[in-house]
Amino acid sequence: MATLQDIGLSAAINILSVLAFLAAFAFLRLQPLNDRVYFPKWYLKGLRHSPTKSGAFVSRFINLEVGTYLRFLNWMPAALKMPTQEIIEHAGLDSAVQVRIYLLGLKIFVPLTLLSLLILVPVNVTGERLESTDDIQYSNIDKLSISNVPRGSQRFWVHIGMAYIFTFWTFYVLYQDYKTVADMRLRFLASEGRRPDQFTVLVRNVPPDPDESVSEHVEHFFSVSHPDQYLLHQVVFNANELADLVAKIKKLQNWLVYYQTKHERKPAKRPTTRKGLFGILGTKVDAIEYYSNLIEKLTKDENEVREKILSDSKAIMPAAFVSFKSRYGAAICAQTQQSNNPTIWLTEWAPEPRDVYWSNLKIPYVELTVRRLLVAVSLFFLTFFFMIPIAFVQSLANIAGIERVLPFLKPVIETDAVKSLIQGFLPGIALKLFLLALPTILMTMSKVEGFASFSSLERRSASKYYLFILVNVFLGSIITGTAFEQLDSFINQPPTEIPKTIGVAIPMKATFFITYIMVDGWSGIAAEILRFVPLATYHLKNTFIVKTEKDREHAMDPGCLSFATSEPQIQLYFLVGQVYAVITPILLPFVLVFFAFAYMIFRHQIINVYDQKYESGAAFWPDVHKRLIIGQIIAQLLFMGLLRTEKVNQSTPLILVLPILTIWFHKFCKGRFESAFMKFPLQDAMVKDTLERATEPNLNLKIYLRDAYVHPVFKGGTPFDRPPVMNEEEISPLVATRRTSHRGSATPSDTISEAEDFICI
Amino acid sequence: MATLQDIGLSAAINILSVLAFLAAFAFLRLQPLNDRVYFPKWYLKGLRHSPTKSGAFVSRFINLEVGTYLRFLNWMPAALKMPTQEIIEHAGLDSAVQVRIYLLGLKIFVPLTLLSLLILVPVNVTGERLESTDDIQYSNIDKLSISNVPRGSQRFWVHIGMAYIFTFWTFYVLYQDYKTVADMRLRFLASEGRRPDQFTVLVRNVPPDPDESVSEHVEHFFSVSHPDQYLLHQVVFNANELADLVAKIKKLQNWLVYYQTKHERKPAKRPTTRKGLFGILGTKVDAIEYYSNLIEKLTKDENEVREKILSDSKAIMPAAFVSFKSRYGAAICAQTQQSNNPTIWLTEWAPEPRDVYWSNLKIPYVELTVRRLLVAVSLFFLTFFFMIPIAFVQSLANIAGIERVLPFLKPVIETDAVKSLIQGFLPGIALKLFLLALPTILMTMSKVEGFASFSSLERRSASKYYLFILVNVFLGSIITGTAFEQLDSFINQPPTEIPKTIGVAIPMKATFFITYIMVDGWSGIAAEILRFVPLATYHLKNTFIVKTEKDREHAMDPGCLSFATSEPQIQLYFLVGQVYAVITPILLPFVLVFFAFAYMIFRHQIINVYDQKYESGAAFWPDVHKRLIIGQIIAQLLFMGLLRTEKVNQSTPLILVLPILTIWFHKFCKGRFESAFMKFPLQDAMVKDTLERATEPNLNLKIYLRDAYVHPVFKGGTPFDRPPVMNEEEISPLVATRRTSHRGSATPSDTISEAEDFICI
Repeated sequence: MATLQDIGLSAAINILSVLAFLAAFAFLRLQPLNDRVYFPKWYLKGLRHSPTKSGAFVSRFINLEVGTYLRFLNWMPAALKMPTQEIIEHAGLDSAVQVRIYLLGLKIFVPLTLLSLLILVPVNVTGERLESTDDIQYSNIDKLSISNVPRGSQRFWVHIGMAYIFTFWTFYVLYQDYKTVADMRLRFLASEGRRPDQFTVLVRNVPPDPDESVSEHVEHFFSVSHPDQYLLHQVVFNANELADLVAKIKKLQNWLVYYQTKHERKPAKRPTTRKGLFGILGTKVDAIEYYSNLIEKLTKDENEVREKILSDSKAIMPAAFVSFKSRYGAAICAQTQQSNNPTIWLTEWAPEPRDVYWSNLKIPYVELTVRRLLVAVSLFFLTFFFMIPIAFVQSLANIAGIERVLPFLKPVIETDAVKSLIQGFLPGIALKLFLLALPTILMTMSKVEGFASFSSLERRSASKYYLFILVNVFLGSIITGTAFEQLDSFINQPPTEIPKTIGVAIPMKATFFITYIMVDGWSGIAAEILRFVPLATYHLKNTFIVKTEKDREHAMDPGCLSFATSEPQIQLYFLVGQVYAVITPILLPFVLVFFAFAYMIFRHQIINVYDQKYESGAAFWPDVHKRLIIGQIIAQLLFMGLLRTEKVNQSTPLILVLPILTIWFHKFCKGRFESAFMKFPLQDAMVKDTLERATEPNLNLKIYLRDAYVHPVFKGGTPFDRPPVMNEEEISPLVATRRTSHRGSATPSDTISEAEDFICI
Repeated sequence: MATLQDIGLSAAINILSVLAFLAAFAFLRLQPLNDRVYFPKWYLKGLRHSPTKSGAFVSRFINLEVGTYLRFLNWMPAALKMPTQEIIEHAGLDSAVQVRIYLLGLKIFVPLTLLSLLILVPVNVTGERLESTDDIQYSNIDKLSISNVPRGSQRFWVHIGMAYIFTFWTFYVLYQDYKTVADMRLRFLASEGRRPDQFTVLVRNVPPDPDESVSEHVEHFFSVSHPDQYLLHQVVFNANELADLVAKIKKLQNWLVYYQTKHERKPAKRPTTRKGLFGILGTKVDAIEYYSNLIEKLTKDENEVREKILSDSKAIMPAAFVSFKSRYGAAICAQTQQSNNPTIWLTEWAPEPRDVYWSNLKIPYVELTVRRLLVAVSLFFLTFFFMIPIAFVQSLANIAGIERVLPFLKPVIETDAVKSLIQGFLPGIALKLFLLALPTILMTMSKVEGFASFSSLERRSASKYYLFILVNVFLGSIITGTAFEQLDSFINQPPTEIPKTIGVAIPMKATFFITYIMVDGWSGIAAEILRFVPLATYHLKNTFIVKTEKDREHAMDPGCLSFATSEPQIQLYFLVGQVYAVITPILLPFVLVFFAFAYMIFRHQIINVYDQKYESGAAFWPDVHKRLIIGQIIAQLLFMGLLRTEKVNQSTPLILVLPILTIWFHKFCKGRFESAFMKFPLQDAMVKDTLERATEPNLNLKIYLRDAYVHPVFKGGTPFDRPPVMNEEEISPLVATRRTSHRGSATPSDTISEAEDFICI
């Protein structure tokens, strides 16, 4: 059992490491050399330029002004100063709302922490149960927790009352925040400029017609069923093969550029490569010639495939983007059922063009339901049985296994140092590798489920990741044994026993979670701001590849806030806070520090660094809300289980009221707000249409929408068309640069690679 | 344990009683005297008239033709002969589809019965487990069941294979039937004539506006948001008080008529009544005068209230019926969200005018969610704790209790005969009374939940009733003890133990369910066709009240198929069949006989007797389908539990596949068909509009719709306006009467009483 001193020591170590990270960051960010690593957002917006033209040579790379170092923490107030409205305009609503989750954590937990420390801790400390029993090992931490209250004591009523206060306070904050976010979203949608997706509906499962092509069929159907509103449509080509080819060419071109640069630097020696695997095996050839030839050949192939797709009617998928004359028309078509067969002519709001996940548009209805079944079953196995393949790999990775497969390594392995390294690290590395690969695995599963936009894919992945964390990290930490063993013991226990089993274990694990919060939360977040990996890659690229200013822009990697991975992790902190609020209140300050620190750091990051790849208008908030509700219910059930083991059985019905109220509260909020995140009300569409007609009477919508939803590979070399949404009218107080107006090609992003894998992990 | 002989005897008794009922029915229905009891449907349709004008006096009342008695079962083929399409036109789609549920039972169970008897029974009989053990009492029935297969025997694989075959066959039949019913519904909606609800949307939660009345607000809102389609609207008056008053007057008028008739028959003596309770207590007065005065006074009140409602703006509820120029416009408005606040301007398809439950239209959103919570909680208590109030009443109704409350009854009660009567019957009667009142209680709960149409109220009640039957009849019969005790034991058992506990008990209860099917199913259904209660009331009314032909029409009580009570009861038979199909196959023939018999009888009843009060277009089918799926899953889980006790543990994963597949199948069907029961596709709306515009170019829709949704009390004495939907173009092969065309006032139903309580229980 960790004592208060242990925790204090651990806290000191973590605080020191956090301070070291922050100091390093404060130093590095002031160097002009690293400007593109720590302020890429401003470069992308065109508000900041490389400091190459003016000043002394050295000061271009290193900051020599001593005064700036003294104010090394001044980025913190600066990060907090920017008002929300400006953040929304600067970084988009998604980012602004995602940072808001940390603020929500503060709103929930600050009053709870005060209350708990003022009321619960004195009640617990004076319980004197642990002091009166000699046989139990206990720590100072336990004396502050509910474990110190004697069995069947009347003091538990204080805890029960507190559980009620906590629940209602959480309801209040959650309700207010759902309302605020819904308002923000509606205001955001109302204020944003014209975008193709406002006028467009994605139609899937176009039924085959023996006499007409897909394009004709779509046109006829919508001209009949929406005669006044139908404007035009764009069919979707099955360009997956072409996209693969283009991606391959791009990769080869990268290599070519690499070798050309190498050659330019050392003109004496022509660079060589090998034909085989990874350029390591195979015969040696002249690298530049080799890649030039390859690219030429593939480009010819590409043109052939491109021709074939455009001429072949079979390459047209049974899906289309149908655009309407007004937002009103699109809103109606997206919300209504078109055909009496509900599995064909399925309409939904079109995602933003850059948000479309093209490969999934063609999946027919029956296949979709089969895919969802398969993914659900595999998610179950992944969550509860993930240790089995890991254990298998680990068993292969042990010494005997390696010796069997690669007998010539035997003398090396048998040395003590290597042996202990293999035995100590390999199993851990196998697990670590799996956990690193997990988000990708979950994203792949979501892709198999057939969602049509990256934003929905991210939301689905986040749900899966949350389940995994809940089962394997939260429950897995409380109860020993693998998730599968837990599952087995759960289904062989009465339902009332499960909260008891976990409830008993919970107070004992408080110190573990405190340490976890400090290591993973505090230090992890501080490491985030240092951006070690982008820093290293930027300088490597800068040294070896970058020749022109454009290259330097490519070398810059702003990264983004990934909802699929970061949100479930925040939820774990919420869950720990909710569970321990009544049980071990001393844990709450640690959670609070995490939320406050993370809020500041991520606010700074979205202002200066991250560049979001799409904008969903905070469509993920219902998920966040739902998971907070789940956490609340888990906390209540575990508290109930704990009290039952403490012989306060008569309290069960009293606490059982809480989860019922919570479920009701969830339903209430769902009915009240959720549709603001799903549907687009006619009234708002009408207002926007009317306004637009008045301000731009001569707008030719047909031209505007004609090429909006063309598969990126058909856009050729032109930069990916980003609609100018949030770039206008922004005020930027943090960077004193001349405000410039810029539309269109603000981002130097490429076409294919972006469409293929711009989800950052 | 019941033996085959016991079952045979019981079957013989039940078959005899069924035959007796049928013979009585065959005799009674041939008497002209009872014509209005057994053929009211044809009277209501105007295709049959009282045989009072022609023939000898006696033959007006009693059938003297001997030949007709010899063909006393000829109604059976006649009932089966009418094709489905004609039944739909004659009795409506709701009735036709409800009878189809019995047919579905036959489709599922006929092949299963054959397979089970041919394969499972031989496998069971040759198991010889029961013969080899002496200590267990067993019956012949058990020898035919799975109980006769030795523990851990390989024979169980036959049962598992059969469970798979059963599941897939059920899938096939359910899928086909869902498809057929969905098609029937779409065809029905497409073919039916013009009805006000096709053009109308019910708008609830109209927000208050300080400057405008509700009516103006609605008009402005929809003229702006649906400018091309909005036609007119009708506000909803809060006429509950008025409706009560009208109902009261109607009741008094009935009494007046009664005494007037009495006076006419015996002119010498003026009838008297007493002023107090039920006309028993209080001072004696002249009855005719008393009631005339009362009616006069109340009519004056009524007129005042009527004036007040029409002039008072507070009497207008925040709800309205908004009508559009086309079905297309209404379909769009019903399916889209109007305002960005999803709790105001809620639109949904308007129910048929006669289907509207007026009292519920005014409930605001927050109140609605609170009501649903309260009803959900009370339903839980009603289902699991219903024995507690019953036991309380029973304890009051025992001898000591009565003596305490009414001490003067002591000498009477203490006699042996009365004593045994009270002790033997009162507790049973208390339970019986509760069960009789149950559908009313459930309907009241559904009304509290705030649904706006009778059809949805019935569907909700049916769900509640199903839960009650499942817990208290099905599980209650298998496991002894009250539902609450079961609940308690379930939550204190591991989830895997529950199917085991029930699974073990199931084979032993087979004889109980066989008897239940014969008594409740066979004889109950046969009693249904006799219509004893309507027969008795009709003749009583005929003797004492009826003076004119119109009175006789009022005395006729056609009744109706009540979805809320009958469907959950059918589901019980399905459930029993599904559960026992693999376990005790000998039960299946009894279920089969029930389905076949009930199908015939109810087909006869909907053709000749029942008069449905509204038409929902089989909107209940998704519920029926869902409950069959639930039954299937219960059967699979119980089978799994049974096999685990039989030490065939390795079969668990194999059977666990079945419920997962079943859930997936349900989701698949839901996605495939459900929206056909919820939404009205734009394509179909368009087709109907276009057709109507071509055939009736001069139709004035405004006049047609103007008064369609007026609260029935404001329609005064005119007969309730029934839209002429299914009365046209019907062919009636069963009754050789001249075909007449009739629109509008075909039903002599009254306004208030119908709107208030036309749900038959």
